[in-house]
Amino acid sequence: MDASPVNNPRWGLWLLGARGSVATTMTVGWAAMVANLAGPEGMVTQLSAFDGVGLPGLSDLVIGGCDIGQVPLVKRAEQLETAGVVPRGIAKRVADDLATVDARLTGGVSAQDVAAHPAEALARLQADLAAFRSDHDLDHVVVVNVASTEPPIEPHDSHSDVDVLLAALDADQPVLSPAPLMAVAALTSGAAFVDFTPSSATVIPAIQQLAERHGLPLAGRDGKTGETLLKTALAPMFADRALKVRSWSGMNLLGGGDGQTLADPVHARSKLESKAAPLQAILGYQPDGPVRIDHVADLGDWKTAWDLITFEGFLGTRMQLQFTWQGCDSALAAPLVLDLARLVALAMAAGEAGPLPALAYFFKDPVGSSQHRLAEQFTDLIAWTRTTAATTGTTAP
Amino acid sequence: MDASPVNNPRWGLWLLGARGSVATTMTVGWAAMVANLAGPEGMVTQLSAFDGVGLPGLSDLVIGGCDIGQVPLVKRAEQLETAGVVPRGIAKRVADDLATVDARLTGGVSAQDVAAHPAEALARLQADLAAFRSDHDLDHVVVVNVASTEPPIEPHDSHSDVDVLLAALDADQPVLSPAPLMAVAALTSGAAFVDFTPSSATVIPAIQQLAERHGLPLAGRDGKTGETLLKTALAPMFADRALKVRSWSGMNLLGGGDGQTLADPVHARSKLESKAAPLQAILGYQPDGPVRIDHVADLGDWKTAWDLITFEGFLGTRMQLQFTWQGCDSALAAPLVLDLARLVALAMAAGEAGPLPALAYFFKDPVGSSQHRLAEQFTDLIAWTRTTAATTGTTAP
Amino acid sequence: MDASPVNNPRWGLWLLGARGSVATTMTVGWAAMVANLAGPEGMVTQLSAFDGVGLPGLSDLVIGGCDIGQVPLVKRAEQLETAGVVPRGIAKRVADDLATVDARLTGGVSAQDVAAHPAEALARLQADLAAFRSDHDLDHVVVVNVASTEPPIEPHDSHSDVDVLLAALDADQPVLSPAPLMAVAALTSGAAFVDFTPSSATVIPAIQQLAERHGLPLAGRDGKTGETLLKTALAPMFADRALKVRSWSGMNLLGGGDGQTLADPVHARSKLESKAAPLQAILGYQPDGPVRIDHVADLGDWKTAWDLITFEGFLGTRMQLQFTWQGCDSALAAPLVLDLARLVALAMAAGEAGPLPALAYFFKDPVGSSQHRLAEQFTDLIAWTRTTAATTGTTAP
Amino acid sequence: MDASPVNNPRWGLWLLGARGSVATTMTVGWAAMVANLAGPEGMVTQLSAFDGVGLPGLSDLVIGGCDIGQVPLVKRAEQLETAGVVPRGIAKRVADDLATVDARLTGGVSAQDVAAHPAEALARLQADLAAFRSDHDLDHVVVVNVASTEPPIEPHDSHSDVDVLLAALDADQPVLSPAPLMAVAALTSGAAFVDFTPSSATVIPAIQQLAERHGLPLAGRDGKTGETLLKTALAPMFADRALKVRSWSGMNLLGGGDGQTLADPVHARSKLESKAAPLQAILGYQPDGPVRIDHVADLGDWKTAWDLITFEGFLGTRMQLQFTWQGCDSALAAPLVLDLARLVALAMAAGEAGPLPALAYFFKDPVGSSQHRLAEQFTDLIAWTRTTAATTGTTAP
Repeated sequence: MDASPVNNPRWGLWLLGARGSVATTMTVGWAAMVANLAGPEGMVTQLSAFDGVGLPGLSDLVIGGCDIGQVPLVKRAEQLETAGVVPRGIAKRVADDLATVDARLTGGVSAQDVAAHPAEALARLQADLAAFRSDHDLDHVVVVNVASTEPPIEPHDSHSDVDVLLAALDADQPVLSPAPLMAVAALTSGAAFVDFTPSSATVIPAIQQLAERHGLPLAGRDGKTGETLLKTALAPMFADRALKVRSWSGMNLLGGGDGQTLADPVHARSKLESKAAPLQAILGYQPDGPVRIDHVADLGDWKTAWDLITFEGFLGTRMQLQFTWQGCDSALAAPLVLDLARLVALAMAAGEAGPLPALAYFFKDPVGSSQHRLAEQFTDLIAWTRTTAATTGTTAP
Repeated sequence: MDASPVNNPRWGLWLLGARGSVATTMTVGWAAMVANLAGPEGMVTQLSAFDGVGLPGLSDLVIGGCDIGQVPLVKRAEQLETAGVVPRGIAKRVADDLATVDARLTGGVSAQDVAAHPAEALARLQADLAAFRSDHDLDHVVVVNVASTEPPIEPHDSHSDVDVLLAALDADQPVLSPAPLMAVAALTSGAAFVDFTPSSATVIPAIQQLAERHGLPLAGRDGKTGETLLKTALAPMFADRALKVRSWSGMNLLGGGDGQTLADPVHARSKLESKAAPLQAILGYQPDGPVRIDHVADLGDWKTAWDLITFEGFLGTRMQLQFTWQGCDSALAAPLVLDLARLVALAMAAGEAGPLPALAYFFKDPVGSSQHRLAEQFTDLIAWTRTTAATTGTTAP
Repeated sequence: MDASPVNNPRWGLWLLGARGSVATTMTVGWAAMVANLAGPEGMVTQLSAFDGVGLPGLSDLVIGGCDIGQVPLVKRAEQLETAGVVPRGIAKRVADDLATVDARLTGGVSAQDVAAHPAEALARLQADLAAFRSDHDLDHVVVVNVASTEPPIEPHDSHSDVDVLLAALDADQPVLSPAPLMAVAALTSGAAFVDFTPSSATVIPAIQQLAERHGLPLAGRDGKTGETLLKTALAPMFADRALKVRSWSGMNLLGGGDGQTLADPVHARSKLESKAAPLQAILGYQPDGPVRIDHVADLGDWKTAWDLITFEGFLGTRMQLQFTWQGCDSALAAPLVLDLARLVALAMAAGEAGPLPALAYFFKDPVGSSQHRLAEQFTDLIAWTRTTAATTGTTAP
Repeated sequence: MDASPVNNPRWGLWLLGARGSVATTMTVGWAAMVANLAGPEGMVTQLSAFDGVGLPGLSDLVIGGCDIGQVPLVKRAEQLETAGVVPRGIAKRVADDLATVDARLTGGVSAQDVAAHPAEALARLQADLAAFRSDHDLDHVVVVNVASTEPPIEPHDSHSDVDVLLAALDADQPVLSPAPLMAVAALTSGAAFVDFTPSSATVIPAIQQLAERHGLPLAGRDGKTGETLLKTALAPMFADRALKVRSWSGMNLLGGGDGQTLADPVHARSKLESKAAPLQAILGYQPDGPVRIDHVADLGDWKTAWDLITFEGFLGTRMQLQFTWQGCDSALAAPLVLDLARLVALAMAAGEAGPLPALAYFFKDPVGSSQHRLAEQFTDLIAWTRTTAATTGTTAP
């Protein structure tokens, strides 16, 4: 399963939200794959298209992270068994690995901490990362944000200039929310940063400057795992067949913690913003129609999205498509976090700095890219991976 | 709308099934576009991606064809108005053009004719084409089959060798059904041939040899306008996200003449065969699940396809997608016939011979190509068009 | 088609919102049925179950009404032809009848009038009704509200006592919105009142007292024509099979004027309130899940409702039902307005006063009834009609 | 949960197909309910409408039966846990009860036995029933067929006369398939018979005569648990709103053993026949449109039915409804088997003989009843239960 050379240096993945559903599913699945208890389903970089590229190996990965929650990972894994997200009995079989990761998790910083004492919070995050790196003698560290969706951040002058931003944080000014603060912590600690949520961490210009300054890659934002994935697969079909989309309406129902967070209109705004871009980009216009997100506890992790698309063809004839998607968000997201960590580690090895447009394939609102067509994104990803691997000399013979 | 130079030579499109719903919708739409009564919706070669390529102009096109039916085109157009396929009042507004085309239509040959007197039937089709070409002083003629779905043809030794085939026809042996006979007529008359139906016309090796021998292009088969279009847009999403498709079931309900033909299991077999290939090709395996075609008169031209896809992701988690497509088959097919005629005329000008894999974008079962991914097919089409246009020197400055 | 005796006295139907889509569709359809240009589809009282009951005849009906709009009915009918709500050409064929009704329509009163000068507005509505009755020598007049959805009315002390209410209106106090004011006008003019919208007209206790005082029937509210119709057909299935509904989520997309009104959250509140009651009443509990109403212009009159129902059966096993309803609201509502007028006229003939629980079949939030099960409502309707007809002696032998 | 008096005599339920999914789910659920490990969801006779009627108590029930399979019930229950039909861990918790029932199960008779040696097969079934009754000192025994769907039986003269039938069996003539032979065994042994499958057991006139002769009740056929349940809930809505159903198409996808059986067109014919009756009966006409049943292994017990209904309203306006039902067949069927056993035991106590039309609520093709409307069937069931209970004096005070 694993293309890495035996002597590969160890690499680390630090998760913001390390006890959440996505992180726990990822950690369980990682342990299961390494132990040959699970196949490669859902993980893009395990496709044969990535064979021989020499991506960092899963068995060389060291996972750590932080979370304001305290429920042990094995307990979280059992909850996910009950919810049907991971298979029955798996928590027990990978309990040792979960305990090992658990021992590395720190408490992180809360939104309150970050608002009240940003400088101290930043220092704490930096110290966590430094310890993680030195404790495990890691060559590359990638930080991935899989915490709950944050509300949109209040714009602030400091966001447009890296020096002003660092000075503001130094002066204990509350100019960032936890996700962007974690990005600052990562980049100032020599780690790359990936935002799997719709936070503003990767779109704040000052943070992009920081990545460039430190020669570190950035990727984001908002993992594309459901309705938007389908939109970016289907919208090109309409565009390239010259079918005019007259309306595209969507209803997203979901339970779980993410559902509760997004039922709050303030948090949902971030998500709705990142969901709007693809249609405009692919079609060249914004079709009519609402996008709704609602919390339905009973659905648990199985997000149910119903979309109705009305369109117009030859001589103005009207037609319709509707779909219902019932996907397990955590199971769809978790392997992509591993994919992103591997690919960003490759980018680090190749010395790439700043936003990585080639990773647009993974995101609803890709930083550094205006490409939203799913197939083109995949083609770009493969091409970039091969080129970058060639640069680093990691490509297998 | 029209990129053709003023002095473009006239070109001809000869339709097998010229009074059918697809052909009538196409003719109405062509006339409406040329008269600026309709926009370019549904027509691929009117997209800006084809600007400046110098495809033959719509206003230079001469339409003719044959049909065993006898209902005047203007009457057929009125029927399509009632059915909602073309807009109210359009038949009247383009009545003159319809009458002009009507005057060029011949009776063609019936399945009975072809079975009883193949040599005579072939001669008649050849004579029709010769007259069409000389009457209108046409530079290039493209023949497109838009007649009803034929049952699969009985295999015959003559199908594998062009000389044996021509000898058999000469000897009045009933070795071909109408569609492949029309292909022979076209290729022996200097015309290119396109199969928009699932007949065997373009897959019989002897006919492919005939195209090569005469230096003429072939394209087919079975226009991709509904359920299969969606399959080839969606299946790559599953493949590239490493999501294992466990079952893909489809129910196709349609009224109209096509629905009646396909309700007959013998005719439906051709269609079901051409519908099976894409999933195998894209996924690398054939998922479980039936594909059904049923006739429901009340649906008229609005084919309703319901597909249920069950799939498996990370750690084996099960998920589902279902969609309902309600598309007007004739309105989806008609503009593609115009697209194909233009693109094949370009291929003729460039001297391409034999199957045209670059036109796979338009077909369920593309002759000469194993590419079924919709986005890749579109990319290939654009690239081929630009290269071919450059060859012929028709690209606009 | 018409069970009424030849010598039936004429009866009148006065529409609030007489130029709206529902009213226009109803008037067109009424004229078409009387002229034998249309069948009885969609009209409940034309079912054989009502044969021989002696309901007032359609050909004896005199239609009038008021509207703040001024577009002529024949023009409105042509707009509905374009929208596909009524058949092509019908407006022309019933143009004389439409003109006749048009000549009877008055300007009604606007929300501004009613707020600024309620006493004067009331007097105007009363004068309209008096003229309508005397001009046409009508035996019974039924007023039906088919105007746009009003926002919920501000509660006021006068609403709980008829004498206080009448005194407040007399004193020019703005205590009512247009729909309830029309109810007061109707009841004080000897006419029955039916609310086909979710206004508060029939639920204000003082208006119910007014109906009782004048010995006149009331019916309402909010015609049950789409998603709620289905809910009341399906929820009993779950209840009677002991299947526990865990969530019932609904998304309603609609275009047209009604869609625009309901896109305004303030107006939508009335509608959402009347939509909530049935599930609680039938299931005995309120399942989780949102109900959304959104405006999608492209859908026009074809309201598209998608509902997802999750439920639990034996041993807690989880299951799902989802449906998509695509109904033409005006075509569904219009015949019911005629049904209601006939049935309420029967109630008047029988001397029934106050809310008519037996008409619950027609309403989302039936005044005077807690019965929401569709089948039971229909059984009750038939039984009541037969009993009431027997009372009045109108039953055919 | 249990309304039965303390001194209730014990009653028996003998299952044909006792190791099948429905029977196993039923047995597990029965044990779980009696042990207070499960609630009453899915079981109709546990609704409050049946309170105080004095139906035989679940704790007084003795379950037995026969099956040609040999897998132990506890093993079957574990398989159903894996399939998600029954909750995890339940097999272990009710293992003792399952073992007790298991010990009572016999091998039954195979289709081959019944064809080759009908007299002997009948004798064996009768002996099984006699032993069951005497071993457990049972007052009433109800036999329920929950075995796989049989192909339609070949018509035979003996089917129309009970004496001819008994003589034919005596003469070892193969005139019956297993299900009707079990009906003969039951009725000649003093037991009532219920057909939960679409076999011909309850519709053969000679078997109905046998029931009358022995004063025993019969009920059937084909439990109504999915698509047909919905049809009988929804079709009355269309009929009573005078909406003309133009087409009603259905696709049923299911896995499991039942799916495999029904994928065979010969077996499916029985099912398709019983599915056709309700629409004709409720609407008064048979709408256009196919009903398909296909096997999709991946769906397991979760039968997925997609139905598309096109209909016509006022002035001929066309509308649509589509639904997707995803129900667990075994979980829907199992509690109804318990319901039927209780209700038929009540009928035995009241001395009812022959087909029981009041149980139409449970069946796709109710023997002895032409009532297919779901709500009316439920009303009839409640009324009959109360009347019959009164007859037997079992109604609680």
